[in-house]
Amino acid sequence: MTSSERNNAMITAPLCVCCNRAYHVAMEKRISAAHPIHELIARRWSPRAFADRAVEPQKLQTVMEAARWAPSSSNEQPWHFIVATKDQPTDFHRVLSCLVEKNQQWAQHAPVLMIAATALHFRKHGTANRHAYYDTGQAVAYMTLQATALGLYIHQMAGFSPETAQKELQIPERVEAVTAIAMGYLGDPQQLPEDLRQRELAPGTRKSTQEFVFEGRWGQKPVWLT
Amino acid sequence: MTSSERNNAMITAPLCVCCNRAYHVAMEKRISAAHPIHELIARRWSPRAFADRAVEPQKLQTVMEAARWAPSSSNEQPWHFIVATKDQPTDFHRVLSCLVEKNQQWAQHAPVLMIAATALHFRKHGTANRHAYYDTGQAVAYMTLQATALGLYIHQMAGFSPETAQKELQIPERVEAVTAIAMGYLGDPQQLPEDLRQRELAPGTRKSTQEFVFEGRWGQKPVWLT
Repeated sequence: MTSSERNNAMITAPLCVCCNRAYHVAMEKRISAAHPIHELIARRWSPRAFADRAVEPQKLQTVMEAARWAPSSSNEQPWHFIVATKDQPTDFHRVLSCLVEKNQQWAQHAPVLMIAATALHFRKHGTANRHAYYDTGQAVAYMTLQATALGLYIHQMAGFSPETAQKELQIPERVEAVTAIAMGYLGDPQQLPEDLRQRELAPGTRKSTQEFVFEGRWGQKPVWLT
Repeated sequence: MTSSERNNAMITAPLCVCCNRAYHVAMEKRISAAHPIHELIARRWSPRAFADRAVEPQKLQTVMEAARWAPSSSNEQPWHFIVATKDQPTDFHRVLSCLVEKNQQWAQHAPVLMIAATALHFRKHGTANRHAYYDTGQAVAYMTLQATALGLYIHQMAGFSPETAQKELQIPERVEAVTAIAMGYLGDPQQLPEDLRQRELAPGTRKSTQEFVFEGRWGQKPVWLT
């Protein structure tokens, strides 16, 4: 289904882009972009309702391959991912146990959970890598947009215990657990408790670009920014 | 030009995707992805040779809009960008002066320079934001892939002085300069000095996914990863 067919479908008979079921396209967040951004970025959002459907091994490999090709300071590639799929219940529950309870509530239904971790020092010199977190963020961003291209959605969580992850997942010293990640196909928001369902249905919001883009020095409005 | 037309063009008569000039497509880095990743990710790389061609205001706005829609911890959006275009020479040289000399050598020819900066504390509570760098990395990743979609290329640099940027660009306390960024259209690698030209022509390299993807706990090879 092309993008314009999908837009038409939304008006006449909303169907999911990944599985042709009715409620999913209705759940595509309508973001109000001020400029025409790429559809992968426009379509991406962070759901809490995931379908009871496994992620194909080929797709798991592809999202990891996308993360692999992110740029990094001195090409250090500090990122690591500890992945757990629901068909390995022991692994899955070990990763799930790292999340705060509020996130466990919905993330237990995602078919894939991960912890992103980062090496804090350069392999070559052993000096601190100022961009370890930053570059890991880039790798997860590439993974996320690749996931979007495959009909998958990612929800990142700061709400987990890095200490539990460190211990339970046997993450070595000088590597730090950064983010928890849930991934899967979109589910029915009706499966969520009321408070989360309302957040699921709310449109995405952001600062305006005027609040974070400056020209030449801090606080100066760019002449080209309208 | 569609992707397959471009592929054919590459075989018969290499032409740039953005300006139809001959040498550019030849300069698309051939990455050896082990799995079929999205073409925006596969095409992206970090050149040092930029064309003497301004970036259109509409494209500048669009790459900033893409950064805007990146996800962030508690939707904090800690990222900020101080942009300088060559047609504002005072601003441009102020940003250029923050780079280390080796980067100034080639980045002076880019039509757009930026410093990405991040707010280190949450606006609401004033507590430290553990994901300030990480989320700024995500925003720059979205910007980078949007740039790729527009025929633009981005080269990020750790090689700049955060202290100089802080002072010269009047970045306030509790906000930190993170990365320098050059953006523009691809240029002719012949314009680079010999050592940089060789790096420009070398293919991209990465660790294998086996080195950074684990299952269930650190060091355990995923059954689905080949």
